[in-house]
Amino acid sequence: MFTFKYNAKNFIMNYLDILPLIPAEEDIVAAVNNDFTILWILLSGILVFFMQAGFTALEAGMTRAKNGVNIAMKNFMDICVATITWVVCGYGLMYGAKTAGFISLGSDVWFNEGAGAHDVFFQLVFAATAATIVSGAIAGRTKYSTYIIFTIFMTAIIYPISGGWQWYGDGAFLADAGFIDFAGSSIVHAVGGFAALVAAAMVGPRIGKFDGGKVNPIPGSNLLLGALGVFILWLGWFGFNGGSQLAWGGADSAAASMVVLVTQIAAAAGALGALFASWIKLGKPSLSQTLNGCIAGLVSITAGCSNMTIEGSFFAGLVGGVLVVFAIEFVEKVLKVDDAIGAFSAHGAAGVWGTIVIGLWGVDGDGPIGIFNGGPDGVGVFLTQLGGTGLYCLWATVTAAVVLYVLKITLGLRVSAEVEKAGLDVSEHGESTDGELASY
Amino acid sequence: MFTFKYNAKNFIMNYLDILPLIPAEEDIVAAVNNDFTILWILLSGILVFFMQAGFTALEAGMTRAKNGVNIAMKNFMDICVATITWVVCGYGLMYGAKTAGFISLGSDVWFNEGAGAHDVFFQLVFAATAATIVSGAIAGRTKYSTYIIFTIFMTAIIYPISGGWQWYGDGAFLADAGFIDFAGSSIVHAVGGFAALVAAAMVGPRIGKFDGGKVNPIPGSNLLLGALGVFILWLGWFGFNGGSQLAWGGADSAAASMVVLVTQIAAAAGALGALFASWIKLGKPSLSQTLNGCIAGLVSITAGCSNMTIEGSFFAGLVGGVLVVFAIEFVEKVLKVDDAIGAFSAHGAAGVWGTIVIGLWGVDGDGPIGIFNGGPDGVGVFLTQLGGTGLYCLWATVTAAVVLYVLKITLGLRVSAEVEKAGLDVSEHGESTDGELASY
Amino acid sequence: MFTFKYNAKNFIMNYLDILPLIPAEEDIVAAVNNDFTILWILLSGILVFFMQAGFTALEAGMTRAKNGVNIAMKNFMDICVATITWVVCGYGLMYGAKTAGFISLGSDVWFNEGAGAHDVFFQLVFAATAATIVSGAIAGRTKYSTYIIFTIFMTAIIYPISGGWQWYGDGAFLADAGFIDFAGSSIVHAVGGFAALVAAAMVGPRIGKFDGGKVNPIPGSNLLLGALGVFILWLGWFGFNGGSQLAWGGADSAAASMVVLVTQIAAAAGALGALFASWIKLGKPSLSQTLNGCIAGLVSITAGCSNMTIEGSFFAGLVGGVLVVFAIEFVEKVLKVDDAIGAFSAHGAAGVWGTIVIGLWGVDGDGPIGIFNGGPDGVGVFLTQLGGTGLYCLWATVTAAVVLYVLKITLGLRVSAEVEKAGLDVSEHGESTDGELASY
Repeated sequence: MFTFKYNAKNFIMNYLDILPLIPAEEDIVAAVNNDFTILWILLSGILVFFMQAGFTALEAGMTRAKNGVNIAMKNFMDICVATITWVVCGYGLMYGAKTAGFISLGSDVWFNEGAGAHDVFFQLVFAATAATIVSGAIAGRTKYSTYIIFTIFMTAIIYPISGGWQWYGDGAFLADAGFIDFAGSSIVHAVGGFAALVAAAMVGPRIGKFDGGKVNPIPGSNLLLGALGVFILWLGWFGFNGGSQLAWGGADSAAASMVVLVTQIAAAAGALGALFASWIKLGKPSLSQTLNGCIAGLVSITAGCSNMTIEGSFFAGLVGGVLVVFAIEFVEKVLKVDDAIGAFSAHGAAGVWGTIVIGLWGVDGDGPIGIFNGGPDGVGVFLTQLGGTGLYCLWATVTAAVVLYVLKITLGLRVSAEVEKAGLDVSEHGESTDGELASY
Repeated sequence: MFTFKYNAKNFIMNYLDILPLIPAEEDIVAAVNNDFTILWILLSGILVFFMQAGFTALEAGMTRAKNGVNIAMKNFMDICVATITWVVCGYGLMYGAKTAGFISLGSDVWFNEGAGAHDVFFQLVFAATAATIVSGAIAGRTKYSTYIIFTIFMTAIIYPISGGWQWYGDGAFLADAGFIDFAGSSIVHAVGGFAALVAAAMVGPRIGKFDGGKVNPIPGSNLLLGALGVFILWLGWFGFNGGSQLAWGGADSAAASMVVLVTQIAAAAGALGALFASWIKLGKPSLSQTLNGCIAGLVSITAGCSNMTIEGSFFAGLVGGVLVVFAIEFVEKVLKVDDAIGAFSAHGAAGVWGTIVIGLWGVDGDGPIGIFNGGPDGVGVFLTQLGGTGLYCLWATVTAAVVLYVLKITLGLRVSAEVEKAGLDVSEHGESTDGELASY
Repeated sequence: MFTFKYNAKNFIMNYLDILPLIPAEEDIVAAVNNDFTILWILLSGILVFFMQAGFTALEAGMTRAKNGVNIAMKNFMDICVATITWVVCGYGLMYGAKTAGFISLGSDVWFNEGAGAHDVFFQLVFAATAATIVSGAIAGRTKYSTYIIFTIFMTAIIYPISGGWQWYGDGAFLADAGFIDFAGSSIVHAVGGFAALVAAAMVGPRIGKFDGGKVNPIPGSNLLLGALGVFILWLGWFGFNGGSQLAWGGADSAAASMVVLVTQIAAAAGALGALFASWIKLGKPSLSQTLNGCIAGLVSITAGCSNMTIEGSFFAGLVGGVLVVFAIEFVEKVLKVDDAIGAFSAHGAAGVWGTIVIGLWGVDGDGPIGIFNGGPDGVGVFLTQLGGTGLYCLWATVTAAVVLYVLKITLGLRVSAEVEKAGLDVSEHGESTDGELASY
């Protein structure tokens, strides 16, 4: 009997010691979810990286062959320059210590332990995307050296400062105001698209584009290559939108999967919208327009991919796809700007649309929030979305204009007419895509 | 003493309360494995999506340049149309509530909580694959508008109905009968391949293909592009087969890895089989044949990728690769059908072979099941495989023939001889892959 | 009271039975991490597989169009032959039972339960990479049949034997000596690069390359395709380096992410290094050189991707990118060897550099280890790195020379001048990339 009592007492004491060692389910799950999250973000970043190949193929396929080397060189510079500027200052500027309020200036995030390499990488490829959007619009007549300098400003300053307004974390004033832009319809695409429009306007049209007071088509050199480029972009977009969940595990796994599914639906709807719009408008189903529509559909769901239903994502993409057909015409005929691949229409116009559609048809965890689906404060949400995207468009327009104006009056933006006619490949790079004309 | 007893009693009571709160290892692992499974299926679906780029490159590379835009447009429509039809009715039809027995009609799966977005996405890209197989066979002479309508039938009705026979879940009658088709040699590839053969026969040969009673080769426009397409398809197939494990974690991780490894082996064996068969038959090692052989090797392991050993997968792929060389000749010389890229041979013939080889050399968790490796009921397994694949081929042949016949007598299947000679790009789309001939 | 005591005693007895069933956190985490590790290695292997498409595009784009089919056929054979040889003997030779010390001969790993399919697959695509490097150097004049046999030797014997020196596991003598080559700057790239140099020298230059005592440029047929190839290679390299962590979970997740980030930085630095070096040297920023520089940057971080800081990886890549510009000139002007795509410079020279840079700027878990960053035994580390990479270069040079010499005096290495002038595509394969010249 004594032994028993002694053992029982010891047992209870031991149990009290052991209890904290028994793992709490929450702790294990948190550790595992951290590993999941790093994996998902890293893989998503790798997919987004590959979008550079898609942009290269799309831009080169939709422009003249004599500028193919130049296109590839610009895209290489976008990702290479962005990599360096991002690590040096862009990441710190966008996500660093909030020492300067508005600008979120600071470098301590980067140099301390808090910055996960996976996150730096994921944000880096986003910055490169914003820069790349510009390159297509000004294809065929822009000085390469000037372009490199513009890309440095774009990835080191323009994109990270405004990106921090929403994605900085606690204290990001647009997020605090209720603005929704899950993966960057405004932050990445509208910023890139409006900078592209400004750049295309300031560089001026390609020779012959508006000759005789008409809009003269300058068809792409290889539409098939363009189509492959769009497939690559579509692929990368699963990482762009899905990875923006920034987490994996439990509810996040299901949420990220739904992001991927609505991204797929909007891309398809955008392509179909542009296809049928072009069929009706031009009499024939156009591949060029279908490709633009697909991109526009993807851009149109980028802000709302966590806030749109299946039906809403179809609607967002479809309208985006139709919109791009008319936006391209508007830019050419009304604005008289030569955006060589429709970068503004697919990224800028569709980026604005994708941001404000949340105010029309959006949902959140509590239910509908848009005007047309009975959100309790639909008008308020719409105005917030409109205001936020307006701010991004304004920022991109002004900063791009300032930087490009300074570059114009110093280094110059444009190659000579002789260089343009001969093609930038031979003149600027001493090479040609078909290799026969290379000078060395 | 009283205190002690009281404490001990309380302790035991408390322990009984706490016990259920201590996490069972099974519960934690189940939750984690669910997150793993969603991740694996989503990533696999993303890889399968990219196969559309591979099909586009392969089909465009293996056919004439004057139809490249049309090829790209057909592939875009396959994935875009499939996305919409799948969400609207295809997924419900294939995996919905079993209210109609044979057809598995029902939409409740889609609209309730049970359907994970990752699964809808994964099944969607499979449906698009089945449709895409047809597009290559009928390249160069088919009306675009008619093709879109056929694709709607293919993805909304033909594929999901027969797919449900095996993959519906409890009550799928072919699965219940013991039929094995892990990732779809029959369900996707034989269905697509036989529909392609019917379509190619009903549309008729391209002008000049059988002139003078001979089989006149119409070489591909860009074999290099075709080769890149096959590499993309091979890449995507890791998701196609590996993702069909439909689970990750523990034994599933190892099983899915083995699926990827045998897929790799069969692809290599198929390419080598066709390479050496063409070398012996034609006197030179042919890239076109090697590419076809690689696809055939992949199709040949798709049904059995969870039921073939390392050696068996080599055997399945090698025979598939040799088979495709002779199947192409058979289709052209005996059937006198102009299958522009050998879609029937690579997907249909190899799909049947990949299904029945399980009855020859297959294994399951209990050991060998085939005729030649000593399965206890080898003949029974073989006949089940033969019967199942036969049913899929019959279904695809009959349904495609009915749909295409109705389209033929209404809208018409084929463009005029003038349009065909000029190329579908300019005539049907007002564009050209090389951009010089675009009409707008 | 009796009942209570009885219950308490039983309870304690039961508790002692139950205790081992309560999961230890370590056990759960270990099981989960095993699933993570398999997933990461499998996905990384899939990315590395896709590098074959990148090599095909790069090599075909940088050489003449008349040899495009041949390039694709060589790359297909690299991966197909490597798949078979690896499963049959390569994997066993590299990772098998240590029955023969130096060579690590043995096949028991492959045929027992110990070999995970994911690991066999991952190592397989590495072996294929080593073989592929050679194919570019000897493009345009090498017999296809002879090349296949060389590839068999490369993947079945040359690569696995020397690979085991470092990566075999316990008892790998170079690893035991402290040699660092995380993902294979020496083991894969220097071995492939030096074998490529020997092969290019023994096959001899293409007709016209050194006519008139000058180095005559033979420009690539499609630089844009080459650029897309480099983007694909860059993509695959995230798997090549990141997957070499060989684990995921906890500290491994963060470590693999850092590997991906420094890989990105070195690639960008390499491209920038070559771009500016070519700009200064040639007067124009060259895309060809930028592409070579990007590959060189990637190779330069491959050995040290787990042992270089952010700054160190930039330095390694930048120097690698500059190095490749001068190495190409050295090979052509001094060695008078015609390496058709600069394979030796990008893989061999940069591979040596990437290995020894660890001895200059490397770090490990305890801090700096290099000469220039204050490692406690910097000179020792440097000499170990130099010795190890020297051994790999020597091994590759000698074994490639022996195999190629035997092939030269038996089957012959080179096609006739007529075949070379007409292009290997038509002569060796009866096909052409543009399809117009196909003979069947």
